[in-house]
Amino acid sequence: MNRLLINGISAEYVSAMDRGLHYGDGIFETIACIDARPVFIEQHLDRMQRGADKLDIPFPDRQLVLDDIHRLLTSANGDSIIKLMLTRGRGERGYRFTGKPIATRICLHSARPDHVADWQQHGITAQFCETRVSRNASLSGIKSLNRLENVLAANELADTVDEGFMLDDDGNVVEGTMTNFFAVIDDTLVTPDLSYCGIHGIVREQIIQQAAKNNIPVHIRRISREQLAGAREIFICNSVIGVCPVRQLEQQRYGEDRITTTIKTILQRRIEADAKAAA
Amino acid sequence: MNRLLINGISAEYVSAMDRGLHYGDGIFETIACIDARPVFIEQHLDRMQRGADKLDIPFPDRQLVLDDIHRLLTSANGDSIIKLMLTRGRGERGYRFTGKPIATRICLHSARPDHVADWQQHGITAQFCETRVSRNASLSGIKSLNRLENVLAANELADTVDEGFMLDDDGNVVEGTMTNFFAVIDDTLVTPDLSYCGIHGIVREQIIQQAAKNNIPVHIRRISREQLAGAREIFICNSVIGVCPVRQLEQQRYGEDRITTTIKTILQRRIEADAKAAA
Repeated sequence: MNRLLINGISAEYVSAMDRGLHYGDGIFETIACIDARPVFIEQHLDRMQRGADKLDIPFPDRQLVLDDIHRLLTSANGDSIIKLMLTRGRGERGYRFTGKPIATRICLHSARPDHVADWQQHGITAQFCETRVSRNASLSGIKSLNRLENVLAANELADTVDEGFMLDDDGNVVEGTMTNFFAVIDDTLVTPDLSYCGIHGIVREQIIQQAAKNNIPVHIRRISREQLAGAREIFICNSVIGVCPVRQLEQQRYGEDRITTTIKTILQRRIEADAKAAA
Repeated sequence: MNRLLINGISAEYVSAMDRGLHYGDGIFETIACIDARPVFIEQHLDRMQRGADKLDIPFPDRQLVLDDIHRLLTSANGDSIIKLMLTRGRGERGYRFTGKPIATRICLHSARPDHVADWQQHGITAQFCETRVSRNASLSGIKSLNRLENVLAANELADTVDEGFMLDDDGNVVEGTMTNFFAVIDDTLVTPDLSYCGIHGIVREQIIQQAAKNNIPVHIRRISREQLAGAREIFICNSVIGVCPVRQLEQQRYGEDRITTTIKTILQRRIEADAKAAA
């Protein structure tokens, strides 16, 4: 099985002059796959295309990207992960770019991490991170290759901890190092406002939409560290793990998961509908 | 002539699994070279080592790095540039890293851009950029591979403009897209406070030190857009261009350069002393 395609060619290396390496000048998507089928593929490609447009990176023909994915997923069974990356391609020294570069398209197929099933079944333990999320309106909403904050935050986690929550400079909890989150605070399902920072996860978006359709209002607002710690339920989400309850945050334990289970069921139904639509 | 060494080997490609590419998980230095001699090499390696320590990336033996540089500079004449990069090396999917990875060491030799001589002689035209510099205490002072803000800011520049000044969220001017700057405001030489964002340039540091030794006080403080525009002199600096006067910023023109010329002379003397010490 090919594991890696670079511009559609089975390869393991990229040019050392790639602007993705020099500047993090590119974007990525992480896509869950069930058997040979990528989940929410249209939503992922839409977001990637929006990111490319904002960065002025030429987005390749969608069919090329889909062909890459399907070549890697041929004969795939069970759950796996596709990571797509798109960089501005090779460049000479210097931040400024001129003309239309030839973007570098990378498609990587990996196994689903072993811990995911355990997390989904038993929930996770979380902590707060010292590393902050930067506010930057120019980069907000772009799932770019500039991820050093996430790396530093993830490196803070104690060995027994699965995920860390990151705050902005004003003390609002924005996201996990690799997940978005929702919480039940004062009987209301809430998730942070991501206008100035953070990544608008595809699963977060699906949950907001599907909750509304199921008459579960979601309030998008600022959430302080204290408010989150005092929540009745907390769950994290992303494409790879779906919905996972937080069982412990710092010293606080969380046992209730009525809303979390409802959202998990609604999301599962949506994933099945996505599969049917693709079939 | 070898142009590129990767871990000391002449090569043009890096692993597509390198964390430098996936996350910008690494650091870099840009070093001016005169004939076969890298300028301020100890200061560059010191800063790189501090960055590596902060990111917990194992810094290679300095002699290995120096050997890379000298191999590429063999028989080099005149002015050229070495770019060093150090990434956390290959990794599997995921922000978290475990154990001591094998860092990827990249050494790139390029010609000095043609425009530098012209900038030094005639000065430059500048504008303000819309793209802001993020405040992030965790990343401040680390010359990391997360440089998308600089890329976006540099891409804003009008064709006739050479450099752009970037502001933080509070409206303070922090740096140029690829330079630090100094200005003469109210008869005082000032340069921005970089405690929360921006890159502490080696040349900026040298200027601050040498100015003090020459009884020219430098005030490190916040500088607003209006204060900068109203300055009597402005100059930008970095390793590649040294000191270049700003002749025009937006619609404002600047003719005076008494302090700029003095600083340029002092820096030149310092570069010559560095050469003698290395010889």
